[in-house]
Amino acid sequence: MSDTRTKTGSVGIVETKHVTFDQEMELESGAKLGPIDVAYETYGTLSPAKDNAILIVHALSGDAHAAGKHHPDDKKPGWWDVMIGPGKGIDTDKYFVICPNNIAGCKGSTGPSSTNPRTGKPYGLDFPMVTVGDIVNVQKRLVDHLGIGQLLTVTGGSMGGMQAIQWAVAYPERVVSAIPIASTCRLSPQAIAFNEVGRRAIMADPNWREGDYYGKDIPAQGLAVARMVGHITYLSDESMHRKFGRRLQDRDSYGYDFSPEFEIESYLEHQGHAFIKRFDANSYLYITKAMDYFDLEREHGSLEKAFAQVADTRFLVVSFTSDWLFPSYQSKEMVKALNANGIDTTYFEIEMDYGHDAFLLESGELLVILRDFLDSVYGEIRDRE
Amino acid sequence: MSDTRTKTGSVGIVETKHVTFDQEMELESGAKLGPIDVAYETYGTLSPAKDNAILIVHALSGDAHAAGKHHPDDKKPGWWDVMIGPGKGIDTDKYFVICPNNIAGCKGSTGPSSTNPRTGKPYGLDFPMVTVGDIVNVQKRLVDHLGIGQLLTVTGGSMGGMQAIQWAVAYPERVVSAIPIASTCRLSPQAIAFNEVGRRAIMADPNWREGDYYGKDIPAQGLAVARMVGHITYLSDESMHRKFGRRLQDRDSYGYDFSPEFEIESYLEHQGHAFIKRFDANSYLYITKAMDYFDLEREHGSLEKAFAQVADTRFLVVSFTSDWLFPSYQSKEMVKALNANGIDTTYFEIEMDYGHDAFLLESGELLVILRDFLDSVYGEIRDRE
Repeated sequence: MSDTRTKTGSVGIVETKHVTFDQEMELESGAKLGPIDVAYETYGTLSPAKDNAILIVHALSGDAHAAGKHHPDDKKPGWWDVMIGPGKGIDTDKYFVICPNNIAGCKGSTGPSSTNPRTGKPYGLDFPMVTVGDIVNVQKRLVDHLGIGQLLTVTGGSMGGMQAIQWAVAYPERVVSAIPIASTCRLSPQAIAFNEVGRRAIMADPNWREGDYYGKDIPAQGLAVARMVGHITYLSDESMHRKFGRRLQDRDSYGYDFSPEFEIESYLEHQGHAFIKRFDANSYLYITKAMDYFDLEREHGSLEKAFAQVADTRFLVVSFTSDWLFPSYQSKEMVKALNANGIDTTYFEIEMDYGHDAFLLESGELLVILRDFLDSVYGEIRDRE
Repeated sequence: MSDTRTKTGSVGIVETKHVTFDQEMELESGAKLGPIDVAYETYGTLSPAKDNAILIVHALSGDAHAAGKHHPDDKKPGWWDVMIGPGKGIDTDKYFVICPNNIAGCKGSTGPSSTNPRTGKPYGLDFPMVTVGDIVNVQKRLVDHLGIGQLLTVTGGSMGGMQAIQWAVAYPERVVSAIPIASTCRLSPQAIAFNEVGRRAIMADPNWREGDYYGKDIPAQGLAVARMVGHITYLSDESMHRKFGRRLQDRDSYGYDFSPEFEIESYLEHQGHAFIKRFDANSYLYITKAMDYFDLEREHGSLEKAFAQVADTRFLVVSFTSDWLFPSYQSKEMVKALNANGIDTTYFEIEMDYGHDAFLLESGELLVILRDFLDSVYGEIRDRE
């Protein structure tokens, strides 16, 4: 019988760890990057058999801080705290959880705001373009460094799901299972279009200065516009109707000026403003390009061929009905290609009206689906051992 | 039997006319505007009974030039030339067509780029905020000026549809019928959100200078970003897959840089670039606000109440299955409220995957629907006479 608890403990106070890989890495573009710093957090305890490690991989603006708090008085816990913790969907009493910050980001791993060892100054646009494949290759270095031969699962939502898929395709022998959530094997042209609008907004900001703005005024306005566009795509028409409708913010009638007056406008303004305090504009450019480039069909000729090397990795694919950025039809295409290769695949389409961001929200359904799948995969592994 | 021709003649070479209304008009905001210039075109001949006049009202970036060409070597005809002309859906052999440019625009009618008579300089942000109601009130002045008592129909797509609806609600005795296409009685919060992103992009451009940029560098980059966002919402996910897919522009492999490389990126770049040559950034701000403000429910308490004064005006409501900016469910809400008032209403939901822009494209179905409806309405009028 399935445990019906949907929320229990916290992993408590955690800290971000750091490791530096000195050896240069050749990227998919042919460029080289190194040394590479990786920030990561871990929760739970690695089993003596080292068979209980779960890699959590994050989305566009995520970081290594997936669960718990850094300080007791932090207002918010890590970005997937609803899912990770003792007794939760990803149960840290059972599993050892690793969450790295992706390269090209700005939260402790090497990215465009890091110091370029060749110049002693921040990389800016001298940072090489990275792909989802490159991001995963760095994660593999971390997993090797931690002495873990096989991951019980790799999971993430959105761009995190792309990394979970890439792990299974690139290193099938290293992952027992993969759980891409609200994800895709390739962005739609519409999603590329939204990413491009965000990039153009940043690059149109005169403070961007071809990426060379560190230590000066940042391209705050451009980055805020990019984030506003992003947030529209993370929600759904239905959830916007429910959350905001056409209500006015703190007023009863139209102001007949250009300040934000609808609640939805204030919400977006707030999201844009909050984002510029915590995220680097150049990282936004690089990471959205990595998303756009990810395309298993282009790389392997077809989705079916992409999964041809995946033999024993089990898949759990989850999508949300109201997600129009990473729509369900893309997850279904993936499931079809997995099935065509005889890969053990479970697919859930969750009925939620929250849009793409649903994967980050507290959902009893997603929690139970993940827990049951992990129980099954872990049980199978231990039976074999 | 319905005439099955879908495309025939052109209205030929036309010219834009101008009229100035000297008397100030009080706007819904309480501000006053005047004198007011209106640019307009007419096609066809007004019947001796003055019973064959059709008012065409345009969308966000439209103008008075709806059909024909200004010069024989113009590359493109007016914006709705597929629909207006001898033997076409709106048959200029039968009907007298009037198309005014809306106030707040930048194509000959008074707008923020016009000279403020009080200062002798362009209005800029001293231009008062206008609403769809104000726009329609100016159109009514034009119709009065032309000596037309009753319009056979008022029709337009998108924001043009809002004006058609507003005509029927504000001046029911003046319109025999109204044909809102791909329109709504109030924008969704998602559509407001997209408008706000466009406005923020313009206002973030340092060349915008609080609207005071005339005679200087224009906020081209901000306006281009706004237009790029707009274009994403005018298409659909399906049409983008069909038109662009994930194809690269003039290259076989990724360039690993930040120039546009997918076809969809080049398309948006082109659209943004073309728009800055023909449209005024301040007009974009004012007109999108007028769209956001339009809300018959807010104004009248409910949609049902909004249509209570409409008695004899017939409605033809048309929406498109793939339009997610002015989605069909909004047209259906309108139809429901019209029906609740016993208003003679015909509704068509056209199956097309082109998204919101479908109303501007050549569609045999839309053409036949409009022609048959106009035949019916005009026949009824003449029977009564």
